[in-house]
Amino acid sequence: MSDSQEARLFRQVDGMIASYRRDRRGHHVNRRFLPSRDEILDIVHLLLQLFYPGYFGRQDLTDDNLQNHVVTVLSTVREKVERQVRTCLCFAAESGGQMEASCGDTARDLTAAFMERLPAIREALIEDVQAAYDGDPAASSLDEVILAYPGVLAITVHRVAHELHLMGVPLMPRIMSEWAHSRSGADIHPGARIGRSFFIDHATGVVVGETTTIGANVKLYQGVTLGALSIPKDARGRVIRDTRRHPTVRDNVTIYANATVLGGETILGADSIVGGSVFVTTSVPAGSRVALRPPDLTVRSKAEAGDFVI
Amino acid sequence: MSDSQEARLFRQVDGMIASYRRDRRGHHVNRRFLPSRDEILDIVHLLLQLFYPGYFGRQDLTDDNLQNHVVTVLSTVREKVERQVRTCLCFAAESGGQMEASCGDTARDLTAAFMERLPAIREALIEDVQAAYDGDPAASSLDEVILAYPGVLAITVHRVAHELHLMGVPLMPRIMSEWAHSRSGADIHPGARIGRSFFIDHATGVVVGETTTIGANVKLYQGVTLGALSIPKDARGRVIRDTRRHPTVRDNVTIYANATVLGGETILGADSIVGGSVFVTTSVPAGSRVALRPPDLTVRSKAEAGDFVI
Amino acid sequence: MSDSQEARLFRQVDGMIASYRRDRRGHHVNRRFLPSRDEILDIVHLLLQLFYPGYFGRQDLTDDNLQNHVVTVLSTVREKVERQVRTCLCFAAESGGQMEASCGDTARDLTAAFMERLPAIREALIEDVQAAYDGDPAASSLDEVILAYPGVLAITVHRVAHELHLMGVPLMPRIMSEWAHSRSGADIHPGARIGRSFFIDHATGVVVGETTTIGANVKLYQGVTLGALSIPKDARGRVIRDTRRHPTVRDNVTIYANATVLGGETILGADSIVGGSVFVTTSVPAGSRVALRPPDLTVRSKAEAGDFVI
Repeated sequence: MSDSQEARLFRQVDGMIASYRRDRRGHHVNRRFLPSRDEILDIVHLLLQLFYPGYFGRQDLTDDNLQNHVVTVLSTVREKVERQVRTCLCFAAESGGQMEASCGDTARDLTAAFMERLPAIREALIEDVQAAYDGDPAASSLDEVILAYPGVLAITVHRVAHELHLMGVPLMPRIMSEWAHSRSGADIHPGARIGRSFFIDHATGVVVGETTTIGANVKLYQGVTLGALSIPKDARGRVIRDTRRHPTVRDNVTIYANATVLGGETILGADSIVGGSVFVTTSVPAGSRVALRPPDLTVRSKAEAGDFVI
Repeated sequence: MSDSQEARLFRQVDGMIASYRRDRRGHHVNRRFLPSRDEILDIVHLLLQLFYPGYFGRQDLTDDNLQNHVVTVLSTVREKVERQVRTCLCFAAESGGQMEASCGDTARDLTAAFMERLPAIREALIEDVQAAYDGDPAASSLDEVILAYPGVLAITVHRVAHELHLMGVPLMPRIMSEWAHSRSGADIHPGARIGRSFFIDHATGVVVGETTTIGANVKLYQGVTLGALSIPKDARGRVIRDTRRHPTVRDNVTIYANATVLGGETILGADSIVGGSVFVTTSVPAGSRVALRPPDLTVRSKAEAGDFVI
Repeated sequence: MSDSQEARLFRQVDGMIASYRRDRRGHHVNRRFLPSRDEILDIVHLLLQLFYPGYFGRQDLTDDNLQNHVVTVLSTVREKVERQVRTCLCFAAESGGQMEASCGDTARDLTAAFMERLPAIREALIEDVQAAYDGDPAASSLDEVILAYPGVLAITVHRVAHELHLMGVPLMPRIMSEWAHSRSGADIHPGARIGRSFFIDHATGVVVGETTTIGANVKLYQGVTLGALSIPKDARGRVIRDTRRHPTVRDNVTIYANATVLGGETILGADSIVGGSVFVTTSVPAGSRVALRPPDLTVRSKAEAGDFVI
């Protein structure tokens, strides 16, 4: 490194450090706690092994070794969950300038409660797997659905993240759900409440907002948005958080590809079907079929159409 | 670990094991065969090295070392393909409660047939690469297209997965296509038949269904769905598999972003163009231009519109 | 390996090599230069550590060790950037059959200029992070936005890739942007010009074309396309590159989910709002609200509708 290169490097270092000093946002310096994305994703992978044993992780499972395997996985999960829950609680307390004295106790209690929920989560997931198989003519076996369906991955991670969200654990549920979003293409906020036997086919582009409520036996296709109609703001123009902004979808509703359903007051009644590409911002009664009118398309020959613009 | 912690852990272990015992779905215990996702993805990466040598994997290739390199890659591919095909066949036989005695022989024959297809697959892929370059004004070189275009990755994996699908290999093609879906955003079912010089620009959100047939020189943009119009069910309400549910797209058709084409009876005639966001459920003759009518939009000033809702 | 197996393998090797010989496209043999995707992604990860120190990479940063950390990261970044810029320049020169004598000098100059830009890029990114928090009621902290928002990842990588694009570095910006596309679902071409305080919510399916210009305080939702209206071709039917094909979006514009805005002549005036699923191909004045007309939907009861087709 020549002298002038070195001088330039130190000038650039000073520039970056001045940039950190000028603004307290965007850096995490002189702070003790940060959740580990890697360990949070370890937890997700271990839970996949627990929910679907033999499909993920160790493969030679038999009645003889199953108990030992589950002991190992469960105790590792508990240890990692407790460490990350504690870190997330301490992190939020430190960010808020509060004492984090109680993080350890709270983390122990929340982890114990979370572990108790695992068998019930698994029961729900088996119904989701069945719903995926039943709902897709292209599915050739439950095995295929478990091993390769992005919608199954998305709901698996969601049911875990939602438990942690209900317990008030900061950051950890969102880190889990964003990983699932990146892998599956479906962005389900950890706050969304989703009933039994849920299936998203193809998954890419699906967005399910934070305050959405979904009943049982609901099926979504790719590109469906369950979103907000507008962003609520207070008198000073600041975004209001924690209000109900997303739709309610009752039991046995199917929503086809790229349909958009918006608004906290919007309720799709039970047994309704929403057609592909439909845009809905008001409630519909139970048993409705919502479709585009026979699409207003122009179909012209090449000669008539001349130069085609989209 | 305190006594009560340990007791609680064993109670949870018992709970999970009871959950596995209660229901034969969702676990893979006391079974011998499971395809290895890792090795299947190894195969995909080795095939990328074979189809596009020097761009992926080993980089210092010359006329002198090329032969040795190809020998190494091809023999490794063959070994891995044969092992995974055999495992997939045995896995399906075991799932169906059949004897898997013939898996080994069948796997050897299918692998030999698959290996014979590789040069032809590569020929088709070079035309796809050229179609990507020719079809995108933003492409600056074939190199860029090979190294960075998600649509090229998607069709590369598809042409391999489709061969395995045609041979009746279970699971393996779907695991490949789901990996490509996760990486590229395009979900092409291994069953789809796709002609020469195929290009998907941007790729995210594209869904091509199992029984789709696509001609030569077809171009799709992001978010295009070639899907089913409804889910066929038998008299007892169960989904019917293996029927023709997805459209036929003839030669030289272009389908712009977020258009949806549905139905097993729907045929897009040759040389047609389908505009962006169009929703088509009926056939159109050759040379058609299908567009939205001049969009029925309301454009209002801020004052007229008042509080905007989407 | 039996004799016949070996004979077959060598026949297949000959087939593949004949396929490479027949066509100069699709292989990179007897060439010296190829950018390393792995090292280019290393650069991206190091820049994340530099822009958001403590959130990514080393976590125990304090005022005492920050300087050393930044020295290490910056000098590593410089070394890797210079090596990859040089390789990319040599690669393009070699592809074009030119001498690459000046690659080294040019790479040194471009790298020096790139390093000087880093503090300014970081300043812009902090405003993007703030815009994400301000724009999403579901965001609970800046921390969450930095650690888990795909739209923040997408703009972070874009601002880096755009600098390299402006400097004329081949391939490297596109490899960066495709990685971000794969992770976030948003496909932003490195050529797009994007103003301050930019936010993409949910990100999946967003496409921003090469010649797009976006002002300050612009917000996009999932599935928004800023695209081309048609592909310009010359008299011989070949695609014309380097023309303006994509829209201009002025300051303070919001574009809701799955809207499509097309064309190089299309300008969305300042302070406009484009509703969800809207399809726009003409300019709108400042302050416009563009919405679908009250959607032309048919809502029927189950009895009226009979068998539902989408």
